[in-house]
Amino acid sequence: MGLPDVRGREQILKVHMRKVPVGEDIDASVIARGTPGFSGADLANLVNEAALIAARLSRRVVSMDLFERAKDKIMMGAERRSMVMSEDEKRLTAYHEAGHAIVGLNVPDHDPVYKISIMPRGRALGVTMFLPEDDRYSYSKRRLESQLASLFGGRVAEELVFGFDAVTTGASNDIERATDIARNMVTRWGLSARLGPLAYGEDESAGYMGNYGGRAAQGMSADTANAIDDEVRNIINRNYEKARNILESSLDKLHLMSAALMKYETIDREQIDAIMAGREVPPPKGWAEHRDDDSDSSSGKTASIDLKPATPTAAASGELAGPAG
Amino acid sequence: MGLPDVRGREQILKVHMRKVPVGEDIDASVIARGTPGFSGADLANLVNEAALIAARLSRRVVSMDLFERAKDKIMMGAERRSMVMSEDEKRLTAYHEAGHAIVGLNVPDHDPVYKISIMPRGRALGVTMFLPEDDRYSYSKRRLESQLASLFGGRVAEELVFGFDAVTTGASNDIERATDIARNMVTRWGLSARLGPLAYGEDESAGYMGNYGGRAAQGMSADTANAIDDEVRNIINRNYEKARNILESSLDKLHLMSAALMKYETIDREQIDAIMAGREVPPPKGWAEHRDDDSDSSSGKTASIDLKPATPTAAASGELAGPAG
Amino acid sequence: MGLPDVRGREQILKVHMRKVPVGEDIDASVIARGTPGFSGADLANLVNEAALIAARLSRRVVSMDLFERAKDKIMMGAERRSMVMSEDEKRLTAYHEAGHAIVGLNVPDHDPVYKISIMPRGRALGVTMFLPEDDRYSYSKRRLESQLASLFGGRVAEELVFGFDAVTTGASNDIERATDIARNMVTRWGLSARLGPLAYGEDESAGYMGNYGGRAAQGMSADTANAIDDEVRNIINRNYEKARNILESSLDKLHLMSAALMKYETIDREQIDAIMAGREVPPPKGWAEHRDDDSDSSSGKTASIDLKPATPTAAASGELAGPAG
Amino acid sequence: MGLPDVRGREQILKVHMRKVPVGEDIDASVIARGTPGFSGADLANLVNEAALIAARLSRRVVSMDLFERAKDKIMMGAERRSMVMSEDEKRLTAYHEAGHAIVGLNVPDHDPVYKISIMPRGRALGVTMFLPEDDRYSYSKRRLESQLASLFGGRVAEELVFGFDAVTTGASNDIERATDIARNMVTRWGLSARLGPLAYGEDESAGYMGNYGGRAAQGMSADTANAIDDEVRNIINRNYEKARNILESSLDKLHLMSAALMKYETIDREQIDAIMAGREVPPPKGWAEHRDDDSDSSSGKTASIDLKPATPTAAASGELAGPAG
Amino acid sequence: MGLPDVRGREQILKVHMRKVPVGEDIDASVIARGTPGFSGADLANLVNEAALIAARLSRRVVSMDLFERAKDKIMMGAERRSMVMSEDEKRLTAYHEAGHAIVGLNVPDHDPVYKISIMPRGRALGVTMFLPEDDRYSYSKRRLESQLASLFGGRVAEELVFGFDAVTTGASNDIERATDIARNMVTRWGLSARLGPLAYGEDESAGYMGNYGGRAAQGMSADTANAIDDEVRNIINRNYEKARNILESSLDKLHLMSAALMKYETIDREQIDAIMAGREVPPPKGWAEHRDDDSDSSSGKTASIDLKPATPTAAASGELAGPAG
Amino acid sequence: MGLPDVRGREQILKVHMRKVPVGEDIDASVIARGTPGFSGADLANLVNEAALIAARLSRRVVSMDLFERAKDKIMMGAERRSMVMSEDEKRLTAYHEAGHAIVGLNVPDHDPVYKISIMPRGRALGVTMFLPEDDRYSYSKRRLESQLASLFGGRVAEELVFGFDAVTTGASNDIERATDIARNMVTRWGLSARLGPLAYGEDESAGYMGNYGGRAAQGMSADTANAIDDEVRNIINRNYEKARNILESSLDKLHLMSAALMKYETIDREQIDAIMAGREVPPPKGWAEHRDDDSDSSSGKTASIDLKPATPTAAASGELAGPAG
Repeated sequence: MGLPDVRGREQILKVHMRKVPVGEDIDASVIARGTPGFSGADLANLVNEAALIAARLSRRVVSMDLFERAKDKIMMGAERRSMVMSEDEKRLTAYHEAGHAIVGLNVPDHDPVYKISIMPRGRALGVTMFLPEDDRYSYSKRRLESQLASLFGGRVAEELVFGFDAVTTGASNDIERATDIARNMVTRWGLSARLGPLAYGEDESAGYMGNYGGRAAQGMSADTANAIDDEVRNIINRNYEKARNILESSLDKLHLMSAALMKYETIDREQIDAIMAGREVPPPKGWAEHRDDDSDSSSGKTASIDLKPATPTAAASGELAGPAG
Repeated sequence: MGLPDVRGREQILKVHMRKVPVGEDIDASVIARGTPGFSGADLANLVNEAALIAARLSRRVVSMDLFERAKDKIMMGAERRSMVMSEDEKRLTAYHEAGHAIVGLNVPDHDPVYKISIMPRGRALGVTMFLPEDDRYSYSKRRLESQLASLFGGRVAEELVFGFDAVTTGASNDIERATDIARNMVTRWGLSARLGPLAYGEDESAGYMGNYGGRAAQGMSADTANAIDDEVRNIINRNYEKARNILESSLDKLHLMSAALMKYETIDREQIDAIMAGREVPPPKGWAEHRDDDSDSSSGKTASIDLKPATPTAAASGELAGPAG
Repeated sequence: MGLPDVRGREQILKVHMRKVPVGEDIDASVIARGTPGFSGADLANLVNEAALIAARLSRRVVSMDLFERAKDKIMMGAERRSMVMSEDEKRLTAYHEAGHAIVGLNVPDHDPVYKISIMPRGRALGVTMFLPEDDRYSYSKRRLESQLASLFGGRVAEELVFGFDAVTTGASNDIERATDIARNMVTRWGLSARLGPLAYGEDESAGYMGNYGGRAAQGMSADTANAIDDEVRNIINRNYEKARNILESSLDKLHLMSAALMKYETIDREQIDAIMAGREVPPPKGWAEHRDDDSDSSSGKTASIDLKPATPTAAASGELAGPAG
Repeated sequence: MGLPDVRGREQILKVHMRKVPVGEDIDASVIARGTPGFSGADLANLVNEAALIAARLSRRVVSMDLFERAKDKIMMGAERRSMVMSEDEKRLTAYHEAGHAIVGLNVPDHDPVYKISIMPRGRALGVTMFLPEDDRYSYSKRRLESQLASLFGGRVAEELVFGFDAVTTGASNDIERATDIARNMVTRWGLSARLGPLAYGEDESAGYMGNYGGRAAQGMSADTANAIDDEVRNIINRNYEKARNILESSLDKLHLMSAALMKYETIDREQIDAIMAGREVPPPKGWAEHRDDDSDSSSGKTASIDLKPATPTAAASGELAGPAG
Repeated sequence: MGLPDVRGREQILKVHMRKVPVGEDIDASVIARGTPGFSGADLANLVNEAALIAARLSRRVVSMDLFERAKDKIMMGAERRSMVMSEDEKRLTAYHEAGHAIVGLNVPDHDPVYKISIMPRGRALGVTMFLPEDDRYSYSKRRLESQLASLFGGRVAEELVFGFDAVTTGASNDIERATDIARNMVTRWGLSARLGPLAYGEDESAGYMGNYGGRAAQGMSADTANAIDDEVRNIINRNYEKARNILESSLDKLHLMSAALMKYETIDREQIDAIMAGREVPPPKGWAEHRDDDSDSSSGKTASIDLKPATPTAAASGELAGPAG
Repeated sequence: MGLPDVRGREQILKVHMRKVPVGEDIDASVIARGTPGFSGADLANLVNEAALIAARLSRRVVSMDLFERAKDKIMMGAERRSMVMSEDEKRLTAYHEAGHAIVGLNVPDHDPVYKISIMPRGRALGVTMFLPEDDRYSYSKRRLESQLASLFGGRVAEELVFGFDAVTTGASNDIERATDIARNMVTRWGLSARLGPLAYGEDESAGYMGNYGGRAAQGMSADTANAIDDEVRNIINRNYEKARNILESSLDKLHLMSAALMKYETIDREQIDAIMAGREVPPPKGWAEHRDDDSDSSSGKTASIDLKPATPTAAASGELAGPAG
């Protein structure tokens, strides 16, 4: 129980690396710093996947770049190259993911973008992966509101480019996650000035008052419930507008990034930086090469009607990742 | 778990076709494209049914037309030719189904009509079958509202032709499905401008906030509940009116299509196109011929008081089909 | 599961009739047409009862009239001749049943009256038996409102003749059934113009939206609940008034029919027609004769304090019968 | 299941009487008429108790008067002569019971008083026993309101004689029963003109609409709940006032009857009639004599803190008895 | 089940006294009169405890004074002499208990004070023991309101002497008991003129209407709930004020009684009478002597954080005792 | 069950100390006085831990200072020295803990500060440990409000120093505990003048009214629920403001104490007193020395994503400790 911190991750990695031939360039502490939120099992899996890729590519040792590819697979899920999406859905997904990324790049205290992809993986049609820079144990109001804005970046991009009638059900997961954050800000974290530093709602934990032999009266009055709903809606709408303002001022970058995604399917920090700086976009590292090694091709089994298109998720390591995974 | 996509379907079909003698004209990829939403079991069943029909008809190989007949049976349920309906109920059912179809043909982004029938099948007195043109992973607001309108096409047709007092309980399933769509648009998909991009209601999934060890306060205030109900009602009424406007301008086609159904019981895309274009309606392919091969005749067992007359359902493949199945 | 339709009933009857000696006049298809709503078990029971009556009467073959008597017993329950009712309760029951019947005869699209009785049967003090003319799979708004009116015919007759203070608890079952119909009209069948074509309330079925992996938010707002209750009350009151108007204009027939019931205890369509036409009322077929063959005389066991006096029920076949059984 | 009617009771009595020596004067049909609401077990018990009393008194045969004493014991519970009540509580109980009786004698359609007692029995400090004159299967609005008035006769008598501050918790059972009646009048029996002929509240029975495969939406709106509570309160208050008016005009009889109870502890119809007619009150039949034969003297076991003083109950046969048992 | 009445107690005592050597002065009927509310087990325990004390004191027979000490232990719980309370808490407890007692002595129809103690016993820091004078089966409105006033005497004394900010959580049990009484007065006992003689709330008992086969609709409207809460608050506040008025006029006695408690820890009726009469307070009977015989000294086990300081409870016999036990 | 009081603790300690070699200076009664709220198991653990530390340090006997270190570990949890926190989070935690402490030092009737630490322990990033001076059995309104103020000291310090947008989720546990206290003040302890001495909400205990065989009607009206929520919010806001006022006047001390924490990680009463008096802050006793003896270093196991940063808890002995543990 509980996830290891950076020192723990380094020790765990070292244990597992003893069993596979790793390259000279491998530094467990570097990998540990790049995998916040990974569980012990995730780390074991990471070493294992990297070894498998090396075997597939007939490499003698596991080098740093293979660890990177293994990390992508674990964080974002296996690619599903067999899945056929219409051009329309692909384009909408590209704008959606670009929306997440561009907003995330323009709000304060937001985790940096790591990778964006419109290659379907697991149950998601696209992924925008944010990766925190270090282990984090608390979240400021500013950081949470930035997460809300980047979560809405996807839907706002759809709306700006295609109009409200073309907006899709694909943002339902973003909406649910944003609502959860906003509601917790109001009811558990005391981050709404209007509702004040109170805890609202059912509390199942023993709590402080346990020492009075007490069982605090629970429940919530109608007035309080209305005030909470209002305030949650205010927080949501404020950050939805923030995302809209950012994307309206960055429409050119939105088009560029979506075009890059249509072309390369997956782009890294290097491409993203080029787009944001107005430079020419270089092809992603290893583009064209590693097409068929680690994708999941048993389409009869993994293709699923439950797929939430254009829903970014942070896959296996999603628990610690940014809001627009 | 999960339904296969088009490539998966083709592979599955090929596996099962190895066991039966198929005609030269058979192209598994064509059948795969025509069966979005079919599960692996549905596809196995499809090949099996086609082989059974071939056996009944003493055909040596399973040809493409037999695959079509097998597909109808699987999608819409076995016909119940033993069931006696009064002329009044038949006529009302014909108008109801025609109403679904004509509205579906006149709203944007709606799946095309595949077949209409007033032959009772399974638990339904009639069926209007829409078939999507390809696998789809997300639904736009425009597409969902078009589904609402075609769902109401049946009830609206009853009302226009026979008056509100003659309207029946037969639309209860359409009503339930439409209400579910409209409610999800407001509460889960953020598709109501008034209620905004928020998730409303109970959430049992772990959700994004899981990483805070958190359990978001749930519940809904009275004001919010009222606003949601209002908005759901607005969406419903708007699309009911849309269906009414469409059918009022197409009354002649409504009469023609219902007459064709009274005559042929089941009509295909060819008859439908003729009616909509004002051309003479040709008899359906194979009309008169395949009467008794694949209907379910054990009436003592399948006739049921629970039948919801005039309720279109998309049968086995209904999960992926359009709203007015 | 599911009830057989007319063809199914005929086949089932033929199977069972093979085991008993039936008269030359017996036509299974005629009996099948006269038993809509009978289950397979009911039909087996019908043939069996008719054979038992024939044995009791020492008849050699089972003739058509014995099938009629067996059908009465199955539809309305065994008579309870041992039960002593006061003259006051008998008279009130006679007016109550006559009220059901006369309203049922004066509203559109209502099933015809088959028989009326103030002989206690099963748990009912009286029965007004309506029998549909054929299998029916949907119900129009007009037909449902006619059912509401005839359901209230019993209570209204009590009130008109004896005054509101003398009105009894005996109508509680009519009231419950009428409330259920009216509530379903508003909340499930979209038959209220005011509440519109929406489904209100809990939905346990998987529903249409299942294909989105979705679980629609349920619940109902306070405003909606108030509007539904209002509308249900309006529908109820409108049809209560309709029943009152009909009986006020038919007071003479109400007195005549109740008098006939006091005299004969049970009257058939022939007597009913005579009363409604103002003709002299002939004695019922076989009156005086079949007194003791098929009644249940173990009063110590069947007499029950739970009896709801003057509550018409449609007994075994009540599921398909009219509202005022 | 179900209670026997008068003919059933007579047959059951005859069966049990075969086993005991009964006097020449015994007529089972007379006893049957006097025991409405008795179950088969009650009747077996009655014969048994009468035989036991005969044995205790060394009688050779069981005579009619012993059946009367056995009936009292079964209907009202065994006397608890060991229990010590203060004079104050006895006097308050006497007025409470007299209040029940006098109101019951002055309202229309009320069951006649059979016996009144302030001898503690079972869990009650006093009993006013009403006995219906015959089997009854339905209850008129007038009869129910009379029951409400007599139920409140006890509390009203306390209030008139001792003042509101001296009124006790002893009427809580009367209050509960009256509330149940009034609530059922409004919500199940359609006996409130204001709320109309509707059923309100949860319905667990299958109900009429079962044949539509339907599950009616339940629940109740806030407005409806308020209206029901208001109407229940109106019915209660109207009949409380009725009881007050009756007792205010009969204060002399209230004092006389309570005095008779203080003197004789138990009075029968003969004493009651004398009081109401203003005649001298004769001593009850067998007063002084049958003191110790059938009382329950194991006070250590039966005395109970749960006793509801002055709460009239109809004991074993209470199900069919009047409201103020 | 059920508690024995006075005659029952006497018989039970006699049975148990046969097993121990009792003094000549012992009169079981006197002890029986002084132990209303004792169960059979309590009485057995009483005789046993008295015998144990006699053994500890090396007495040859169990005399009447030892029965008194045994009775104290059973009614109020074993003393916990090991428990260390601060002087502040002791003083506050002394005023709290004195407040209960003085109010109880100044309201009508209140049980007389038997003993007051600030020696911790069981889970209570102090006890004010009221003992009813005889078995009681009903409670008048006046008596219940007097109980409310004496229940609040403790908190009011704290407030008058130390101010509202110094008032403690120690009155929570008094508050809960007072709220229960007031709520029952309004909702079950018909003792509020405003809410009338109605039963409010859930009723799980079979109830009177069982004979209609009926299940009364339950629930409570919002207006009713508000009215009940208002009325409960009125009753509470009225009696809180009554307690305040009494203690404000008796401040001198409050100081005297609290001083006596600080000095003697436990005072009896004799000391209480002296204080109330303004006489000098004599030391309690046996003060100094019986310090260590029957206290519970295993502090490691009985000292508990759940202790509700200054909460009077009537211990073992509390069921029948006055509200401020 | 129940915690031992001071005498109980002394006896328990003596039992366990018999098994380990303790120094001459050890006085069980001193340790007992310093461990209010410790359970029997805690005390056994304390002796055991002290012995383990002695073994690790190769001491021959367990001296008083080792008991102190064992006590810290048991009260605050094992240190987690492996955990890496960013400088930002460390600084925010330092201000948060200093806020708790300074408010706690400036409100009346508050337990004294014992130790403050920003060394992560168990699941907390920091701890402010208050230790009551003796066993306490009741809590005054003044004391409870002081606890509320010190609970908010942490969040207020964050807000004053870094601004509301930088405020974190780390105070959620403080908020929850404060809400529980304030709610209990209003609903169970009668400590709100506005809501009065009533108990609000569900009561599961048998309660006083048990002796009436009664089950008090429960529930709460909408008006009452609103009033309670308002009052809880008032109490919370009043004490939040109180904390703000205190810290605004002590900003210099807040900066000094947070600097001391950044330097020493853990400070004792000596350092705290120096800061509050404006004296130079001496290094804590044994600073630098006992770094690695009793910390929990298996970071892979104890580091947890559920960590609530900056959440003060009173660890094992938290049940009796002050609110800002």
